[in-house]
Amino acid sequence: MSSLQSFEALELKLQKNSDILESAFVDYFENKNIEKGVAPFLATEKYSLLGGGKRIRPFLANEVCSMLGGDINASMPFAMAVEMIHTYSLIHDDLPCMDDDDMRRGKPSNHKVFGEAYALLAGDALLTNAFAVAASNKYTDARATARAVELIAEAAGDAGMIGGQFIDLEGEMRRLSLEELLMLHSHKTGKMIELSAVLGCLAAGYSEESDEFKCVRTYAQKIGLAFQVVDDILDVEGDEATVGKTLKSDAENQKTTFLSFFDIEKAKRYAQSLTQEAKIEISKIDNSETLCALAEYLVTRNK
Amino acid sequence: MSSLQSFEALELKLQKNSDILESAFVDYFENKNIEKGVAPFLATEKYSLLGGGKRIRPFLANEVCSMLGGDINASMPFAMAVEMIHTYSLIHDDLPCMDDDDMRRGKPSNHKVFGEAYALLAGDALLTNAFAVAASNKYTDARATARAVELIAEAAGDAGMIGGQFIDLEGEMRRLSLEELLMLHSHKTGKMIELSAVLGCLAAGYSEESDEFKCVRTYAQKIGLAFQVVDDILDVEGDEATVGKTLKSDAENQKTTFLSFFDIEKAKRYAQSLTQEAKIEISKIDNSETLCALAEYLVTRNK
Repeated sequence: MSSLQSFEALELKLQKNSDILESAFVDYFENKNIEKGVAPFLATEKYSLLGGGKRIRPFLANEVCSMLGGDINASMPFAMAVEMIHTYSLIHDDLPCMDDDDMRRGKPSNHKVFGEAYALLAGDALLTNAFAVAASNKYTDARATARAVELIAEAAGDAGMIGGQFIDLEGEMRRLSLEELLMLHSHKTGKMIELSAVLGCLAAGYSEESDEFKCVRTYAQKIGLAFQVVDDILDVEGDEATVGKTLKSDAENQKTTFLSFFDIEKAKRYAQSLTQEAKIEISKIDNSETLCALAEYLVTRNK
Repeated sequence: MSSLQSFEALELKLQKNSDILESAFVDYFENKNIEKGVAPFLATEKYSLLGGGKRIRPFLANEVCSMLGGDINASMPFAMAVEMIHTYSLIHDDLPCMDDDDMRRGKPSNHKVFGEAYALLAGDALLTNAFAVAASNKYTDARATARAVELIAEAAGDAGMIGGQFIDLEGEMRRLSLEELLMLHSHKTGKMIELSAVLGCLAAGYSEESDEFKCVRTYAQKIGLAFQVVDDILDVEGDEATVGKTLKSDAENQKTTFLSFFDIEKAKRYAQSLTQEAKIEISKIDNSETLCALAEYLVTRNK
């Protein structure tokens, strides 16, 4: 299959996954046991969670589970949880005291619509509820479920994403070394991408000691880093309408990015070589064609 | 034993519990597997988590577990989790976009010391890590652990504490009915107090269907509501130095409180009758003297 054909097939799968996830979220909100007085609050969560984004993270969880012969019902609660956590992180990142971004996914950011107080709470609620959703998984055994919760909290917490956010804020005040930048990204975005993929392994019944788990983790680490390199490139040469958020913000905020160390061509080659390494790693497992295509797709994206 | 004697005994127990918890938190931070670059961030979490507060919630978890013959090692991770969540909620509540409080537990609030961005992240991290701590419980079976995580997320999420916070914010713009006020408090503070107590049951191996679980839940609901009535009273007639936070804020913010419906004497009688009901309920279980004393203690507190 040519890469164009495999991208088309992948895009169909991404769309299908996104649709399934959307409908799972709609069900989730409809079946939520909540007081009448609180019901209007759900609009703040739905605004950011529904309809938008490429939903790469939940796709990873579900696709890894499928590749390993697992039941997608078992990966779905984890897929929902990682998307909820990703969404909370965007809402809080966009707040005036953080990145102060007015636009997200092509529409006004959460606090521009609902105000800061409700945006703060919407983020808190999505983060909290993510754990309820993950812990209520009916298709994994309780030991795997408890371990999944632990891994989610570690990847999202100060040893993971929040730690990356901290380094990012610190980095605004000074120039980071390349080593620090790599650490920033492995935490800020890398850990959640890695998490998403390995949750697919847990859902399929593979332990952390299995070769499959280790391959999947390495694959995800590499595509996660490539993803961030591409993000830095898009911030400079992307089209704002296509990308759907405010661009050139890195330069304006004097943030250290990969382009502080490499020119654009070298950065692109770096992202490409990470992608090739990721593909080699995941190819050790059968039925990994879709994840190979995903790695290529992410590095050639324009949004 | 006179109530004065039982208060002295209780205060010793509260202090001992607080010391054990403090040392568990110190161990937790010391053993945390975190990148060197992120280590300074932990100061933002420790500032609000360590040293302060009555720590009623973790005491409830541990004392209920003890009363039921359980091992305190099993309730401790849950006790830590509820205190971490309580602390995160205080940090976020104090932010300028929420209650904008400069003081908390007798010292400057988190964002006054570290700035808004770090205070936001400190709250996010404590909330997230709470789930890692709860899920890593080594003394409960995996099914009880997964269920505990679910109950924690429900009590802290939009069906619980965050929902109460939403109603509270909405209530600033208008006068609430007594029914709405009861709903506000059952959510904003009540659910986490109830949660703390029932986690003690789960830790001791009692299922949600057991009579003990139901007694404990009812007891906690009643002391939780009494606690809030006393809070409203203290906001009016308490001493700011003793209480350790900015008072008279309810009247300034034109918030609906129990004193919007009752005079102070009637509010005190209401809190007392809830306390008596709570004591009757918990007395159905053996070894409940300490929890009886706690109910009395909370209603007679001056801070």
